[in-house]
Amino acid sequence: MSLKVVIIGGGSSYTPEIIEGFINRYQSFPCTEIVLVDIPAGLEKLKIITALAKRMIKRVKLPIQLSMTLDRRSALKGADFVTTQIRVGGLAAREKDERIPLSHGVIGQETNGAGGIFKAFRTIPILLDIAKDMHELCPNAWLINFTNPAGIVTEALIQHSPHKRVIGVCNIPFNMRNSIAEMLGCTAAEIEIEFVGMNHFVFGKRVWQNGIDRTQEVIKRLIQNGDQYSPANIVSIGWEQTFIESLQLIPNPYHQYYFQTDEVLAKSLQAFKENGTRAEIVQKIEAELFQKYQDQELDHKPVELEKRGGAYYSDAACNLMNSIYNDTGDIQTVNIINQGAIPDLPATAVIEANARISRKGPQPLAIGPLPRSIRGMIQQMKAFEELVVEAAISGNYQVAYQAMIMNPLIPSDQKAKTILDEMLEAHRKDLPQFHLHSFKF
Amino acid sequence: MSLKVVIIGGGSSYTPEIIEGFINRYQSFPCTEIVLVDIPAGLEKLKIITALAKRMIKRVKLPIQLSMTLDRRSALKGADFVTTQIRVGGLAAREKDERIPLSHGVIGQETNGAGGIFKAFRTIPILLDIAKDMHELCPNAWLINFTNPAGIVTEALIQHSPHKRVIGVCNIPFNMRNSIAEMLGCTAAEIEIEFVGMNHFVFGKRVWQNGIDRTQEVIKRLIQNGDQYSPANIVSIGWEQTFIESLQLIPNPYHQYYFQTDEVLAKSLQAFKENGTRAEIVQKIEAELFQKYQDQELDHKPVELEKRGGAYYSDAACNLMNSIYNDTGDIQTVNIINQGAIPDLPATAVIEANARISRKGPQPLAIGPLPRSIRGMIQQMKAFEELVVEAAISGNYQVAYQAMIMNPLIPSDQKAKTILDEMLEAHRKDLPQFHLHSFKF
Amino acid sequence: MSLKVVIIGGGSSYTPEIIEGFINRYQSFPCTEIVLVDIPAGLEKLKIITALAKRMIKRVKLPIQLSMTLDRRSALKGADFVTTQIRVGGLAAREKDERIPLSHGVIGQETNGAGGIFKAFRTIPILLDIAKDMHELCPNAWLINFTNPAGIVTEALIQHSPHKRVIGVCNIPFNMRNSIAEMLGCTAAEIEIEFVGMNHFVFGKRVWQNGIDRTQEVIKRLIQNGDQYSPANIVSIGWEQTFIESLQLIPNPYHQYYFQTDEVLAKSLQAFKENGTRAEIVQKIEAELFQKYQDQELDHKPVELEKRGGAYYSDAACNLMNSIYNDTGDIQTVNIINQGAIPDLPATAVIEANARISRKGPQPLAIGPLPRSIRGMIQQMKAFEELVVEAAISGNYQVAYQAMIMNPLIPSDQKAKTILDEMLEAHRKDLPQFHLHSFKF
Amino acid sequence: MSLKVVIIGGGSSYTPEIIEGFINRYQSFPCTEIVLVDIPAGLEKLKIITALAKRMIKRVKLPIQLSMTLDRRSALKGADFVTTQIRVGGLAAREKDERIPLSHGVIGQETNGAGGIFKAFRTIPILLDIAKDMHELCPNAWLINFTNPAGIVTEALIQHSPHKRVIGVCNIPFNMRNSIAEMLGCTAAEIEIEFVGMNHFVFGKRVWQNGIDRTQEVIKRLIQNGDQYSPANIVSIGWEQTFIESLQLIPNPYHQYYFQTDEVLAKSLQAFKENGTRAEIVQKIEAELFQKYQDQELDHKPVELEKRGGAYYSDAACNLMNSIYNDTGDIQTVNIINQGAIPDLPATAVIEANARISRKGPQPLAIGPLPRSIRGMIQQMKAFEELVVEAAISGNYQVAYQAMIMNPLIPSDQKAKTILDEMLEAHRKDLPQFHLHSFKF
Repeated sequence: MSLKVVIIGGGSSYTPEIIEGFINRYQSFPCTEIVLVDIPAGLEKLKIITALAKRMIKRVKLPIQLSMTLDRRSALKGADFVTTQIRVGGLAAREKDERIPLSHGVIGQETNGAGGIFKAFRTIPILLDIAKDMHELCPNAWLINFTNPAGIVTEALIQHSPHKRVIGVCNIPFNMRNSIAEMLGCTAAEIEIEFVGMNHFVFGKRVWQNGIDRTQEVIKRLIQNGDQYSPANIVSIGWEQTFIESLQLIPNPYHQYYFQTDEVLAKSLQAFKENGTRAEIVQKIEAELFQKYQDQELDHKPVELEKRGGAYYSDAACNLMNSIYNDTGDIQTVNIINQGAIPDLPATAVIEANARISRKGPQPLAIGPLPRSIRGMIQQMKAFEELVVEAAISGNYQVAYQAMIMNPLIPSDQKAKTILDEMLEAHRKDLPQFHLHSFKF
Repeated sequence: MSLKVVIIGGGSSYTPEIIEGFINRYQSFPCTEIVLVDIPAGLEKLKIITALAKRMIKRVKLPIQLSMTLDRRSALKGADFVTTQIRVGGLAAREKDERIPLSHGVIGQETNGAGGIFKAFRTIPILLDIAKDMHELCPNAWLINFTNPAGIVTEALIQHSPHKRVIGVCNIPFNMRNSIAEMLGCTAAEIEIEFVGMNHFVFGKRVWQNGIDRTQEVIKRLIQNGDQYSPANIVSIGWEQTFIESLQLIPNPYHQYYFQTDEVLAKSLQAFKENGTRAEIVQKIEAELFQKYQDQELDHKPVELEKRGGAYYSDAACNLMNSIYNDTGDIQTVNIINQGAIPDLPATAVIEANARISRKGPQPLAIGPLPRSIRGMIQQMKAFEELVVEAAISGNYQVAYQAMIMNPLIPSDQKAKTILDEMLEAHRKDLPQFHLHSFKF
Repeated sequence: MSLKVVIIGGGSSYTPEIIEGFINRYQSFPCTEIVLVDIPAGLEKLKIITALAKRMIKRVKLPIQLSMTLDRRSALKGADFVTTQIRVGGLAAREKDERIPLSHGVIGQETNGAGGIFKAFRTIPILLDIAKDMHELCPNAWLINFTNPAGIVTEALIQHSPHKRVIGVCNIPFNMRNSIAEMLGCTAAEIEIEFVGMNHFVFGKRVWQNGIDRTQEVIKRLIQNGDQYSPANIVSIGWEQTFIESLQLIPNPYHQYYFQTDEVLAKSLQAFKENGTRAEIVQKIEAELFQKYQDQELDHKPVELEKRGGAYYSDAACNLMNSIYNDTGDIQTVNIINQGAIPDLPATAVIEANARISRKGPQPLAIGPLPRSIRGMIQQMKAFEELVVEAAISGNYQVAYQAMIMNPLIPSDQKAKTILDEMLEAHRKDLPQFHLHSFKF
Repeated sequence: MSLKVVIIGGGSSYTPEIIEGFINRYQSFPCTEIVLVDIPAGLEKLKIITALAKRMIKRVKLPIQLSMTLDRRSALKGADFVTTQIRVGGLAAREKDERIPLSHGVIGQETNGAGGIFKAFRTIPILLDIAKDMHELCPNAWLINFTNPAGIVTEALIQHSPHKRVIGVCNIPFNMRNSIAEMLGCTAAEIEIEFVGMNHFVFGKRVWQNGIDRTQEVIKRLIQNGDQYSPANIVSIGWEQTFIESLQLIPNPYHQYYFQTDEVLAKSLQAFKENGTRAEIVQKIEAELFQKYQDQELDHKPVELEKRGGAYYSDAACNLMNSIYNDTGDIQTVNIINQGAIPDLPATAVIEANARISRKGPQPLAIGPLPRSIRGMIQQMKAFEELVVEAAISGNYQVAYQAMIMNPLIPSDQKAKTILDEMLEAHRKDLPQFHLHSFKF
């Protein structure tokens, strides 16, 4: 029996990680065919990754057929799983997402604030195209999206695509679980966290170790340490002890943008002055990685990849595919349609929640009303996301502006307009939907 | 390590089934102590059951300590699981629940209509007392209630008891799954049904066999057969082909009361004329069963028990305890707090739904909005149940009357009043809450 | 300045009443043009009514231009108000609505049960056509619909018509207010009733006389009298004292169908046996009325019209037009979009509620959550109405069947199917939407 | 017939305005008795105001009995209306509300941000006491609260007081209406604005002049002018043209804090450096006013009062009392319980909305779902308000901290804690609820 996976954005520096994931899981997830797909501009990288991936597979002598192509539609035929890890406009676009807001004294980050809005504007139309192709060419395949902003992109797909087999994946819940396992001195497999909220705005509400409630102990430790897990790309500045004590919730690293706005902004501006944007740093890391990847002796994932920031992203994706394929019914944290799991949000909204993963797809566990302390902010962020999706699809300038002023990181109507106009212009080639209509800048 | 189970209503004729359940599951659920509890009026039966249960355990040589007591509070100390299978007022009360409505030309049944209302009125105060004792004496123990009307009783406990570890169990979903497995020629373990609704008002919405959607095939078969699973106590009269075709849902046997009211009433009145009430038939079966149970040679559950109507009830309860104890995370259909799983019902309401069962307790899978065809009726039944709970607790005559007129099986305000007054009088000794106040009949 | 009213169904026997309404209100509502529209089959009656209306206007010497036409579209041009009082299929169709269910032992009534469902099926497509014409030809005109079932028809228009200036009118709230005024010995103008619910399923929740709460007194009187206002067409059989006492609400006459189902059915079957259907009685009254209307000496509304059943319907409609025209801002009870006024029903549903009437149109006063006692039943009726609307528009047999089984007055799946099939056949010529598709009977 | 009004905070410099209001409305609102109540610390001012008020009444020769007292409970007996315009802690407290946040570089304003939170903390317990007294001493009297933050205070009263006859009043909607009337060249009486949202966070959604929709014209004018009405205390810095164009809503002056945070903060810090806090400026104005008030020749409201910032507050309050007393049924914009009027907010929340005012009290007009653009932000603000109310009543430090971090104007967890602790200490004498418990700073 065949089991075909298509990796869109196959030329990504992350691909060796997902290839390693498939190799490690081969016994339970006997992948027969992997196709790496990319766009013409990425051909050079795609070739390097394909060669490396082939060496990795060869080393372990598994009967996995791996190929590359620029023809997405032909690749999709017969696919069982499709993963998307694309970056529309490349790191050059990311640099703009970071640089432009910062140049106006506003947080510039690739998934939050103005940067996240524009990454969504560029990404959503492309993902909708992919989903449309899937609906036609491989209607039973699952689209596993880990392109950021993963929550907003999944919302767009669930609401607007005819293809409904879509799951958004983020490594944050995955890594929070690892981090708490480490804190409690056990394996991640023993830990379950009840997550509430949305992607990059998710809180851990309760923690169980082997079914025993350990929430209070974790809260206590977080208060004592003042610190927490933080990924390579967004280094935590630590929480006020009272913050954890008062909320009785476990924040995720992105919460610092919203609850430590002043400090994060100051730090970002300082870093920007000293080292330029994160995009520029990443460009250097990427160059080094691809240098390494070209080494004909290299036949495994190099450790340097972990510096890159998205660690365990592909682990999360591989686990998901494995559980669907094997109908395991285990719990994973994914971005899916609410269905009432959080009654304070629209039943059709996308949330990041614990879901039972089986051949039937993901089914969220009902969570019940949000804690009063965070209810308003999560409703606000969801409403903001709806505006981003609407603007990304319609190319409507007014709605894009609404998204800007409703984002908590953009502190004034004037800056909202200045940044919006500048970014629409800077990303012009990747935002045809906004430039079909004439509109006033 | 000890594992103690308390069976309240231990003198029930069903007890041998649950004892058999513990014996069969001993490897995974190593029960160390079972206490059978009953009230003084049930002492004779309790002795017979205790003796039989001891013989059953002895035969298989398991180190399970089994004892009996009339002192509920002492029994509860240190319990891990408490099951309740009581019948306040005994079969004599059931006879009144059936006889009085039928004598006025209205459906008389022990869990639906006026009979169900009064069974709830008698049962809820007792169960609340038990839950209060548990909160004090064994706060970590789970209360597994399979006393009918299980949905309404669980609603009362979840809303009004300080003890929140409460799960309601019914054999209907369990048996529907068995019946569909038989239809598809596979084992029940391979089948999952997505249930939507409330106890005795639950529909099967989708059916999967090993994760593959088989809903359409099951619907087709039900249409062809016009028939379905029906338990011993409520024999199905078969569905209009159009009924299944139009709803695209799998009804449960109790739906006949609501969608075939005329026919069920006519049939019930006929049966009542010929054989008296179901309670009277059951009384005969019970007498025979207890005759059999006294046989000192008998050391296993006799097959005659299956005629009794509640088959697999204790299988459902044992599976539940087993999954909690072993933190299995499998899916079972139970009565629990909605938490948004069905956004059309209050988040605090009790629903009958698929839930993940683990040491953490049951967590419902989010279902999403009800199918339009059944939304109104399920909202109506839930609102009705709220009135029953309120009346059962307050003893308020006006609210009891509201419950009567809002029940779809009671066809007029005059009959509602006549039956209400007659039943309040007939059950007087078991309804102190209604007779503390003076009220007008 | 011109003020043009178009009366669709102008050949109705009720028309003299609305003409009288315009005459009486001429000082505040200076109607300049009235056009009576009807279909070719109604031409004879239309001529009679037109002649009578002209005599009525002539008598009072008002400069109102009155004309008749069969060309609806030309009449609509320039209209300010359009009223609809049509009966698709005429009284012959009503006779079938009543006769067929009764012949199967089921309540047959023109706005409730199977009869109401079929009246909606016939009426909704025609009303949607009218609204579509208005959207094109007189987009600022208000459509005042008093064709029954007025709530369901308004729901269909609000949900599915491009023309949103639609208000449904019923005489029941109007008459309840008159009746309570009489009870309290004051004028109707002094009385305000807070209505909750939907058309023909509306309750009076509070009563004020000149802003003073008189609810308790009204409740007490209703309990003492056991009786209430009932219109000519549906004679009340009186309420159980406990019914009023327990609900603490004022029922409307149609509630007897739902809360006294057995008695009403028995009475209806008896009446049917003795006198045939209400439709047949009405046919006789109509014939006599038109006989009278042809009297060339008659130049005012004859008192006999009041026997007809819809008394004050046109008063309700005239008051409404008057308040919109004069921007009065007074409170009237109308069928309009919920907008949250009753949070237990969809915000987009049509409810019957007190609304402020001004040039801006009607704005409902927020009511808040439904009383617990009636919440479920009203949610059930609204869900039922949604099914009727969907079936009426789509012509989908399965949805029509769902509406039948979800109606509380249709007591079994078998009867639902029998009556549905028989009525679809009997009304075939007026239900093209159901007969375009082939479907199985 | 007697008509008694009690003015709590009668020594306020605003009182002459409300006295003038009663004088002007005497024909329709024949007030027989006015009692000015204040606390001992305000005795001196109370005497001055009482003397002035007596001169004002004497000048117009109306039979209004006016008196002063420090005994609130005796004053409340027999009251028909009670107004509250108090400032717990006086202007000295306001100075702290403004100074402390500003000293940490955070917006310091008396009704928004940290200042507003602490004003609520000080005010809510006192208002609850007053309402409790009213429940006992004048249960039919209406409490007209215009103490800020009026929305939050009304929320606290509606949710937690046994006395439910509570209405919150703000002059913002009143003044927006005046300002738009001026813009359109008509009287305020001709204008109706549909307001959506909450106090100080309310938008104008539609504008009618004599029932004719003028929204588009008003929007256009606002875009052209870039400016709008702004009260004396919070001078507008003008809106981005795109802001109005995109939202298609009319903002209120307080929106600048949320949508122009950076600019308002910069401006406030500048003003603070130059002139100190607004409280200090007001203290000077107040001193001058009371100087003036002592002039024994003064027998009318001096024009200088209008500089004070709360212009028309008492007009709003007087209109409200007049409409209740005379059962007028006109529309006014008040703070009342939602009841579903905005379905996106809890049905029990307090909103600022158009309501029909009559002897029955205020009834909100149903508004329907919030515009998508502002839905999230209004939900966020309402959730924030709930936290403020809960903290004000419980004195719970953790909840107070939650309110701080969830306020959009407080930009970091560290500043939240610093300001919270400093203000709890600074206001210690007025916040006994927070200092009964020991808690960690």
